[in-house]
Amino acid sequence: MTHDSFRGVFPYLVSPIDASGAVKRDVLARLCRDLIDAGVHGLTPLGSTGEFAYLTWEQKSAIVETVVEAAGGRVPVVAGVAATTVVEAERQAAAFQAMGCDGILAIMEAYFPIGDEGTFGYFNAIAQAVSLPVALYTNPNFQRSDLTLGVIERLAAIDNVAYIKDASSNTGRLLSIINKVGDRLQVFAASAHIPACVMLIGGVGWMAGPACLVPSQSVALYELCRQGKWDEAMAAQKELWALNQAFAKYNLAACVKGGLELQGYDVGMPLPPQASLSTEGRDELRGMLQSLGALGSGRRRVTQKN
Amino acid sequence: MTHDSFRGVFPYLVSPIDASGAVKRDVLARLCRDLIDAGVHGLTPLGSTGEFAYLTWEQKSAIVETVVEAAGGRVPVVAGVAATTVVEAERQAAAFQAMGCDGILAIMEAYFPIGDEGTFGYFNAIAQAVSLPVALYTNPNFQRSDLTLGVIERLAAIDNVAYIKDASSNTGRLLSIINKVGDRLQVFAASAHIPACVMLIGGVGWMAGPACLVPSQSVALYELCRQGKWDEAMAAQKELWALNQAFAKYNLAACVKGGLELQGYDVGMPLPPQASLSTEGRDELRGMLQSLGALGSGRRRVTQKN
Amino acid sequence: MTHDSFRGVFPYLVSPIDASGAVKRDVLARLCRDLIDAGVHGLTPLGSTGEFAYLTWEQKSAIVETVVEAAGGRVPVVAGVAATTVVEAERQAAAFQAMGCDGILAIMEAYFPIGDEGTFGYFNAIAQAVSLPVALYTNPNFQRSDLTLGVIERLAAIDNVAYIKDASSNTGRLLSIINKVGDRLQVFAASAHIPACVMLIGGVGWMAGPACLVPSQSVALYELCRQGKWDEAMAAQKELWALNQAFAKYNLAACVKGGLELQGYDVGMPLPPQASLSTEGRDELRGMLQSLGALGSGRRRVTQKN
Amino acid sequence: MTHDSFRGVFPYLVSPIDASGAVKRDVLARLCRDLIDAGVHGLTPLGSTGEFAYLTWEQKSAIVETVVEAAGGRVPVVAGVAATTVVEAERQAAAFQAMGCDGILAIMEAYFPIGDEGTFGYFNAIAQAVSLPVALYTNPNFQRSDLTLGVIERLAAIDNVAYIKDASSNTGRLLSIINKVGDRLQVFAASAHIPACVMLIGGVGWMAGPACLVPSQSVALYELCRQGKWDEAMAAQKELWALNQAFAKYNLAACVKGGLELQGYDVGMPLPPQASLSTEGRDELRGMLQSLGALGSGRRRVTQKN
Repeated sequence: MTHDSFRGVFPYLVSPIDASGAVKRDVLARLCRDLIDAGVHGLTPLGSTGEFAYLTWEQKSAIVETVVEAAGGRVPVVAGVAATTVVEAERQAAAFQAMGCDGILAIMEAYFPIGDEGTFGYFNAIAQAVSLPVALYTNPNFQRSDLTLGVIERLAAIDNVAYIKDASSNTGRLLSIINKVGDRLQVFAASAHIPACVMLIGGVGWMAGPACLVPSQSVALYELCRQGKWDEAMAAQKELWALNQAFAKYNLAACVKGGLELQGYDVGMPLPPQASLSTEGRDELRGMLQSLGALGSGRRRVTQKN
Repeated sequence: MTHDSFRGVFPYLVSPIDASGAVKRDVLARLCRDLIDAGVHGLTPLGSTGEFAYLTWEQKSAIVETVVEAAGGRVPVVAGVAATTVVEAERQAAAFQAMGCDGILAIMEAYFPIGDEGTFGYFNAIAQAVSLPVALYTNPNFQRSDLTLGVIERLAAIDNVAYIKDASSNTGRLLSIINKVGDRLQVFAASAHIPACVMLIGGVGWMAGPACLVPSQSVALYELCRQGKWDEAMAAQKELWALNQAFAKYNLAACVKGGLELQGYDVGMPLPPQASLSTEGRDELRGMLQSLGALGSGRRRVTQKN
Repeated sequence: MTHDSFRGVFPYLVSPIDASGAVKRDVLARLCRDLIDAGVHGLTPLGSTGEFAYLTWEQKSAIVETVVEAAGGRVPVVAGVAATTVVEAERQAAAFQAMGCDGILAIMEAYFPIGDEGTFGYFNAIAQAVSLPVALYTNPNFQRSDLTLGVIERLAAIDNVAYIKDASSNTGRLLSIINKVGDRLQVFAASAHIPACVMLIGGVGWMAGPACLVPSQSVALYELCRQGKWDEAMAAQKELWALNQAFAKYNLAACVKGGLELQGYDVGMPLPPQASLSTEGRDELRGMLQSLGALGSGRRRVTQKN
Repeated sequence: MTHDSFRGVFPYLVSPIDASGAVKRDVLARLCRDLIDAGVHGLTPLGSTGEFAYLTWEQKSAIVETVVEAAGGRVPVVAGVAATTVVEAERQAAAFQAMGCDGILAIMEAYFPIGDEGTFGYFNAIAQAVSLPVALYTNPNFQRSDLTLGVIERLAAIDNVAYIKDASSNTGRLLSIINKVGDRLQVFAASAHIPACVMLIGGVGWMAGPACLVPSQSVALYELCRQGKWDEAMAAQKELWALNQAFAKYNLAACVKGGLELQGYDVGMPLPPQASLSTEGRDELRGMLQSLGALGSGRRRVTQKN
């Protein structure tokens, strides 16, 4: 297996934590294996959905360790590095490489606004700290400092900066990135974009929380896009979109954890003071998962249909 | 000609005003005729690009009169109604119908935030004031009150509310609208969306300022989308996208007016205190138009190629 | 009477409009006379509270005419000029001077963002169009373009630019303005500031909607501040502050019009689609006015106490 | 010494870190002693100025340890607790109490928005975790979730929730808080407010970074306010305000660290990727400090004058 060309569906994994603060390794491992069996192309621990901002380093490293072991080399593992300081980001990235990860998702946290020079410095430092391919992550909704086109262009010139995951809802911006550095950076969509649209404009896949709940359906959509069957792709996309809408409406982690609980994974709740999914939200989600064939024996239903 | 099914490329027209405040009727009329000759499917005076927020009623009515006459029934004219009060919006809409317009683009201006009830009331009043089809216009970037999905759903139930033009950059929101009321409301894209993506998810065309500058290229893109030739469509789309980026970067009206001046239309500058297109902006725009074959004899070049 | 040194309490007048769109001249005139009798130092028609953004020119000129006549030279009238274009702002300002106003409150409306050069140009043009003193108005909450400190400094150098009315809630910014151009520009507070604080740092009064409802109480507070009786001033200020809080919570115009209706002025409702004051809001307001001695015979109560 | 009634000037301490990541304990201890000698009423490590969001737990505990020891019981130490999870906040608070702190400044970090219930739960948990007085910290500029008036009222009912430090620039909001729960919560200003104004409306002091640079001047201002000498207070306030403006203009930590370097404290630079104070900023700051008598032998000048 070569990991230097990530593409396809990379679910953002949730972080199952028990009441004592320990990672539920068995629950997480089972989820990883099931997702791989359902055909996903990679695993992404410690993204937004994975509550990276709420975990201790002990929890983070236990999660990455578990995912790498569960993946067993069948699909690449791209782990989220997130810090406010350069020093801490370098440390995390090097540690994840040592644990056997196949790529780094690079996230910058900030309290004060950071200018272009600081932003470049942060992401560059992560790239230098590892030999793995790095995916730049940008999320203007939850973060304070955004990657400008100019900084993205400078970062794209670095050898192992190979991907960008954009979590804004501005799909046009992705086309601007592709037009400018599409030969050097591959683009992954996020749940706020319509995956089929990002595939149409030249994206290579998506990293998103909802794929935890509908992995085989997501893979089926990806294949339709890749084969250029756009009419069929859009029919599938329209059905799946309701789930992305729910993710925008509710807390991301609460929503995916709530859905996985409905599917029989004992992943627990988001860490307090985050709220759990409301009863109303759970009912809405149950209805969606049912109609998508993703409840009960439904996790396999799509495969059976084919 | 029947106008009850608008579709395709509707350029947002600029509003050419001379130093004395008079509308340059001949310049506007020539632009309209050239656009129709280039194949556009409709004309939209008094959108954002048309500086609706900067014009007196005398100027607005002279513009609509000129456009209706220049169109001569060859393509539908959808004029922008924009007001802060219900009374004024009703008056404008009725006047535009009396002048021979084929549709109304309904825009709500606001100083104080307006709740859902007031927003519904405003758009409903416009629809009741005319027998023409109405297109809802929403632009969260420049306006203070947005149309929520709930209000859109209520408005879609009104007989002559038939279209929605969304000028956010959130393409996913358009899919949410289509999923909810796609059987009753047809969706037009704006320049902040990638038109080919909006066509893919079920849109019927786009209303946008850039189409003033590249009408035949826009029509060619539209036809490729309509025929489902998505690979060719995306190749064309990628080339045209640079123009949309420029529109986001500079003032919309300054940009389209500046470009039309380069193409030989004496449309003048945006009304002060709006700034004219900078020298840097004009140079950037000239380069784009040249590479798109839209300068000099270029306005016909695309047609010649076909 | 000399008007070249405005100071004190300038109520923002509401704009009473009947169902046919006509200005209720007699109601407005009675309100003006009562406010002057209660001791206010000036009258300000066509501010935010006056719904300037919702009125036709016919309504605006009828309002200014009525206020000038009712004032009868007893207190200065400072009328709001508000437009998106330079041309229209100049026209309004000149017309208000011709009608006998004593000052101009200069407001810039905007649809597209306007840079520093355009902003300076707009306000400068108003100052040149009249020989009256001009008060700059800045309201970052409801407007799109703000006056930077640099532009304020340039405008302060113009002879008849003599006042600034800041409607942000950032009192520190006022001290920055005073530190920079306090020798040339006099500062008026707005309802979002604590008037006593603005007086402490060197302000000369306030222009605000709530003063319509509690004119004598406002004047009493102003006098305490002017005499440096800060402890008594703060006791009075704390009582009055509840009213300012209500104005921030509800729509400004709805709130002042609702309160005036409770006090027996038949000013009507804000123009649709603006919502009227809710029942809950009216009850809250009634309680406040009662405890401030501003209901029933209460409009005189403060005077009686003294 | 009793610490149950904090009042006066509490400088936000910077966090001096060397290139290896170690806390410069001697520099920090000297700064603390000098501030106490200059008359400050308390010390606040790990506020925004103290870069709490950029430090490891090892660095945080070394800082608190150093400050408690340097204070030696002469003034209270109120340490900043900041976390995204309830569990981590409780752990930090308990640790700081064990280290001998006199109070807790409670800060909530957030990645996803947190509702009222979660916000209450977070601050309540900190209060329950210690027997020390707790100051609620709210900073809508840099944080994602704000304390609503309703939540503040609920928190004020808790026995050891005794203070609130508001870092918005909205002084009116402070008066609303005082009007509502002023009998239970004492209010401290922040650098974005005008301290003299907050004292006027009933505040008990300020917690702010600039006081590190002008401690004796700040204490003198505080005393003037406390004695009700408002005219003299405002004269002093106007001079000091330029410094607060600089803090708003530049990165807080960069600014205070840069100023302390000019004063001979080797506190170093903010942690990367934060930028250091620019040359222009340093020059501006030098000029201010000089004119305030806070450079060279200037740190004592104010005392000498008295």
